[in-house]
Amino acid sequence: MVRDLSADLKACAINTATLGFQAPIKEVVEAVARAGFGALAPWRREVEGGDVPAIAKQIRDAGLKVSGYCRSTYIPANTRDGFRSNVESNKRAIMDAAVLGADTFVMVVGGLPLHSKDIAGARQQVKDATAELLRHGKELGVRLSLEPLHPVYAAERSCLTLTAEALDWCDEIEGGTLDPWLGVCLDVYHTWWDPNVLSSIARAGAARRIFNFHVCDWLVPTEDVLNDRGMMGDGVIDVKALRAAVEAAGYRSHVEAEIFSVRNWWTRAIDETLSITRERFATAT
Amino acid sequence: MVRDLSADLKACAINTATLGFQAPIKEVVEAVARAGFGALAPWRREVEGGDVPAIAKQIRDAGLKVSGYCRSTYIPANTRDGFRSNVESNKRAIMDAAVLGADTFVMVVGGLPLHSKDIAGARQQVKDATAELLRHGKELGVRLSLEPLHPVYAAERSCLTLTAEALDWCDEIEGGTLDPWLGVCLDVYHTWWDPNVLSSIARAGAARRIFNFHVCDWLVPTEDVLNDRGMMGDGVIDVKALRAAVEAAGYRSHVEAEIFSVRNWWTRAIDETLSITRERFATAT
Repeated sequence: MVRDLSADLKACAINTATLGFQAPIKEVVEAVARAGFGALAPWRREVEGGDVPAIAKQIRDAGLKVSGYCRSTYIPANTRDGFRSNVESNKRAIMDAAVLGADTFVMVVGGLPLHSKDIAGARQQVKDATAELLRHGKELGVRLSLEPLHPVYAAERSCLTLTAEALDWCDEIEGGTLDPWLGVCLDVYHTWWDPNVLSSIARAGAARRIFNFHVCDWLVPTEDVLNDRGMMGDGVIDVKALRAAVEAAGYRSHVEAEIFSVRNWWTRAIDETLSITRERFATAT
Repeated sequence: MVRDLSADLKACAINTATLGFQAPIKEVVEAVARAGFGALAPWRREVEGGDVPAIAKQIRDAGLKVSGYCRSTYIPANTRDGFRSNVESNKRAIMDAAVLGADTFVMVVGGLPLHSKDIAGARQQVKDATAELLRHGKELGVRLSLEPLHPVYAAERSCLTLTAEALDWCDEIEGGTLDPWLGVCLDVYHTWWDPNVLSSIARAGAARRIFNFHVCDWLVPTEDVLNDRGMMGDGVIDVKALRAAVEAAGYRSHVEAEIFSVRNWWTRAIDETLSITRERFATAT
């Protein structure tokens, strides 16, 4: 049975990027709680340098969960020092994720180092770093969620693109386990086009590795592949079918709206965006 | 042994899109032959409505081959009539490909019909049409080359994205055969990010299904995913490694430069672009 999100707003999460970083995290937490959602996923830019325990307490007191903490520092680097620096930055972020009580630390792994053409080398760096960060995450009680990104971002943001590849990495790094600490963040924007998306979802579910499920839509036309994502229902992604697949594969955690939209949603008042997102969770997700 | 393109310019082809459609096909043919290349791949916009046999004769007389004829009408449609119309349009184009003596008819298969979210349905339409067009191509002596496009084009240009999927379709439609009429057009722009690209190239070569090999580069940053491709060597694709893989898989036909570049190469004189392309075939391909 696919969950009825119109009756279960607590299953719905707001990734704060959806709101365009217009307000301090304190106001965002209040707005998300006021709108009735069950969780939010904050970004490091909203948290780092602030009073992290106080932010965590505010979120808890508002009755909200933290569905994920966004996101990792890009890992691949041209030098050993650069690589170590990126790993250490992620370790610090994972500590903040622990303080926040985040369900997962979302890993957008990074693309090619400057001037590099070596995507296989970049992938190896990511795997090495993930193995180290996984040990760190287990110690702190934070699960790591590898997010394969749409291949349009392969050069600059994520050498990890296919869901099947992310699952291969999970197996390679963690091995088979009943209660994994390493899993995947599935985002319809990044995965909808993949002819293997349904089989990969089934595989991920069977391995209990679906840690996050993000929704938005692919607009036609898309004016900017980075910041012109659509609200669920406004594009060509069969979001309902993908949610049904994810839930059929056993996923029961939050359905999270993450919409980068410089020309539309980020120009709107936060409460308006939250209200329409709530409606679209019910009608188009 | 990877071929030495600096000593084998006849192995190099120019896709006429690289020259920005600035001149009539007659002048383009003259310029490509004058520059010493072995082949060109014209577009239907340059050919249809013209005297196709005369164009074919000019190309032959200039000592050029036609590495491919670009490209298919998008196939998926919302209605049966729309689908039939698209198939018939492709049949006419395949007749022109035969007149041109084209080595292949390049198939960019199309994305989702207007307002559709049914990518699986679009793929089925493409497979059905390809089966029909393959029979037509065999009768006329024209090989069909399915071109998987980068997933960024999945919605609007090609529901076919992965090379492995294209090969699955070839097997499904044509079966195993020693001398296939259905194959794939591998373009580094569309495939470089794919973690399975090397295994897919090996599989395609073993099945003798690599019909075309297109080169260009992925610029960082890319300003426009449609028309901001780079010249070989100017971006992050390891073009040499991919050409080596394709040749190791047995490919011996043309290496074709296809560069959509509204802000750079299309603003240059044709002879200048051809001269630099020739140099980059030798140094960066």
